[in-house]
Amino acid sequence: MINYFSSDFKLGILGGGQLGKMMLYDTRKYDIQTYVLDPNSEAPSRIACDHFEQGDLMDFDTVVNFGRKVDILTFEIEGVNIEALKKLEAEGIKTYPSAATLEKIQNKAIQKEFYTEKNIPTAPFKRYQKIANLIADVESGARSLPFVWKSATGGYDGKGVSVIKEAEDLQKLPNAECIAEEMIPFKNELAVIVARTPSGEVKTYPVVEMEFHPTANQVEYVICPARIENHVAEKARAIAKQVSEAFEHVGLLAIEMFQTENDDILVNEVAPRPHNSGHYSIEASYTNQFEQHIRAILDLPLGNTDSKVGGIMVNLVGDKDYEGEVVYKNIDTIMKMDGVTPHIYGKKITRPFRKMGHVTIVNKDINEARNIAERVKGEIKVISRS
Amino acid sequence: MINYFSSDFKLGILGGGQLGKMMLYDTRKYDIQTYVLDPNSEAPSRIACDHFEQGDLMDFDTVVNFGRKVDILTFEIEGVNIEALKKLEAEGIKTYPSAATLEKIQNKAIQKEFYTEKNIPTAPFKRYQKIANLIADVESGARSLPFVWKSATGGYDGKGVSVIKEAEDLQKLPNAECIAEEMIPFKNELAVIVARTPSGEVKTYPVVEMEFHPTANQVEYVICPARIENHVAEKARAIAKQVSEAFEHVGLLAIEMFQTENDDILVNEVAPRPHNSGHYSIEASYTNQFEQHIRAILDLPLGNTDSKVGGIMVNLVGDKDYEGEVVYKNIDTIMKMDGVTPHIYGKKITRPFRKMGHVTIVNKDINEARNIAERVKGEIKVISRS
Repeated sequence: MINYFSSDFKLGILGGGQLGKMMLYDTRKYDIQTYVLDPNSEAPSRIACDHFEQGDLMDFDTVVNFGRKVDILTFEIEGVNIEALKKLEAEGIKTYPSAATLEKIQNKAIQKEFYTEKNIPTAPFKRYQKIANLIADVESGARSLPFVWKSATGGYDGKGVSVIKEAEDLQKLPNAECIAEEMIPFKNELAVIVARTPSGEVKTYPVVEMEFHPTANQVEYVICPARIENHVAEKARAIAKQVSEAFEHVGLLAIEMFQTENDDILVNEVAPRPHNSGHYSIEASYTNQFEQHIRAILDLPLGNTDSKVGGIMVNLVGDKDYEGEVVYKNIDTIMKMDGVTPHIYGKKITRPFRKMGHVTIVNKDINEARNIAERVKGEIKVISRS
Repeated sequence: MINYFSSDFKLGILGGGQLGKMMLYDTRKYDIQTYVLDPNSEAPSRIACDHFEQGDLMDFDTVVNFGRKVDILTFEIEGVNIEALKKLEAEGIKTYPSAATLEKIQNKAIQKEFYTEKNIPTAPFKRYQKIANLIADVESGARSLPFVWKSATGGYDGKGVSVIKEAEDLQKLPNAECIAEEMIPFKNELAVIVARTPSGEVKTYPVVEMEFHPTANQVEYVICPARIENHVAEKARAIAKQVSEAFEHVGLLAIEMFQTENDDILVNEVAPRPHNSGHYSIEASYTNQFEQHIRAILDLPLGNTDSKVGGIMVNLVGDKDYEGEVVYKNIDTIMKMDGVTPHIYGKKITRPFRKMGHVTIVNKDINEARNIAERVKGEIKVISRS
């Protein structure tokens, strides 16, 4: 085994946002030397890494030069230059997840075609190189409304996805490659995180459930374990494992899924990195997702993915009416509540709907956790000074 | 409430060793700005803080100049210049724990006299200004052998403490202020961590048990909860609370105690900071000791001190036969075991018995955790490159 701990070994991380920041708790715990590249000099990961560099993740030379300094390269954001990863791999620098895996995921149309090819259940869809082709299909009646439009590239946190209900909605869409997906009525939106090592050891985390606001189309709570029947949970974990193996993925893969009215599981999309749906694991799991990612890419034994207690995650997003220097109003009130831990990502400026942090609520009784989570959501507000 | 999160508020920490390093996980989680002072440019806390300064913690000017840069000052090691803390307090900089509290603790003779004054149960002792006075008492028969000698100052991690069995042992002792303490036969060595805020909110952690090696006089396992009767645990927690209030302590106070053959609890000594006996809390508790210390000194609500699961801590100390660049032999073997998390402090050089890290083992069943802990101890070795 390579000596990763307090040694000359160097781990590179592309991206220095909140996911990178949380990953650094675990590289610090293991005293693994880290290099971080991010375009923002004020990135949350700028401290706690050993070496921080400011630079463009989509620039070939920047990524290649950065990657040459490290022994293993990983990323916390998918928007990185794939040609640079290929070049580095050719030079013998290990990249986990690999360029080949990322390439299949970065473009949502390619990702969907990959599911079809591998017999992974997913909602029916069609790929369009240009928006004009999609408009033609709608006009000819070949595609009926409503349907889900997804941009092939550049989508993130709900951007690049729209439900198209009327023909005139089509006019607002960018003229880029996209897919049109059948709208599937579903009972639940679920997610499973899978960890896989270069040696092929695989472990899945329990199924989590995204609970949506009853009227606003917005995830309010990520709940672990999902309040679903065992046989559905087992099916979801089995499919997640199948997806990870199909991609020959190394590291963490978060798989978002729909549970249909008939209890079928359809894969929606994946993220090849630690994921918002796994933040609960810091407080609730035997092995949190960030530590697991580090274990996986270093080909160390994977840790126990079970939960010690029930966990619920609430995102802290900037209030829609405020912009400016951030204030976490009533944070002291929520810290009085049982099993409540706020995570503050370290962004100084709040903007409407900006992800500023999250709050985890843990409890042996998941229903009690859910009650406390509702009180948390009712109290805390991400606003700005006066 | 002061806005501590992602703000201009500055927390100063005197000392940048492993305790400081682990505290920084939680200042990062809350995005609290930190300044760290440590004499070692390679200190474990040198990264993950916002500003690191190299300097002598016992030097008056260094500590005063450092302290003037921050709003609240705390420490992770007791060996700091108290006059500097007093000066800073006089200038309006909050110091938690206070100079007055630390002064009562730094000198073990004063600490013991304080217990007597406050009716806190402790082993009978006598204070000696010079070693010659102690020797005279032994020679005159006023003090009978065996007894425990403790240096009044400078003791740490077993240094400055000796069991004196024969008169000739006295010749090895330094000529400094000390105490001689009656040897009390005890069943168990226990510890309780108390958190207390400036507003006076107080919480105690569950009682932990130090399990000693059957022949070598060395703590092998710190076990939470201690395997003792409930009424003894309640008594220990009540006395711990009494000690914290007597000191008017703010922050964390770790109280080491003996459970005598008659189930009396005697206070041995205290540490006014996060403590080795609380490391299990990172994985096992609803609120780990480092987060709790931050909550306490910032006068935020204290978190739940209960455990999610049973926890056992094993220290990783340098093997007696090795010195040089550290290697953690068989770390991959222990990472395969259920609920095992190594913590590597980040010291590049191992030396015999140097504290290099610790391993936490968590399990719903404390007896199963104890079995795994024994396997961990049997496998991992802290050695050096040949």
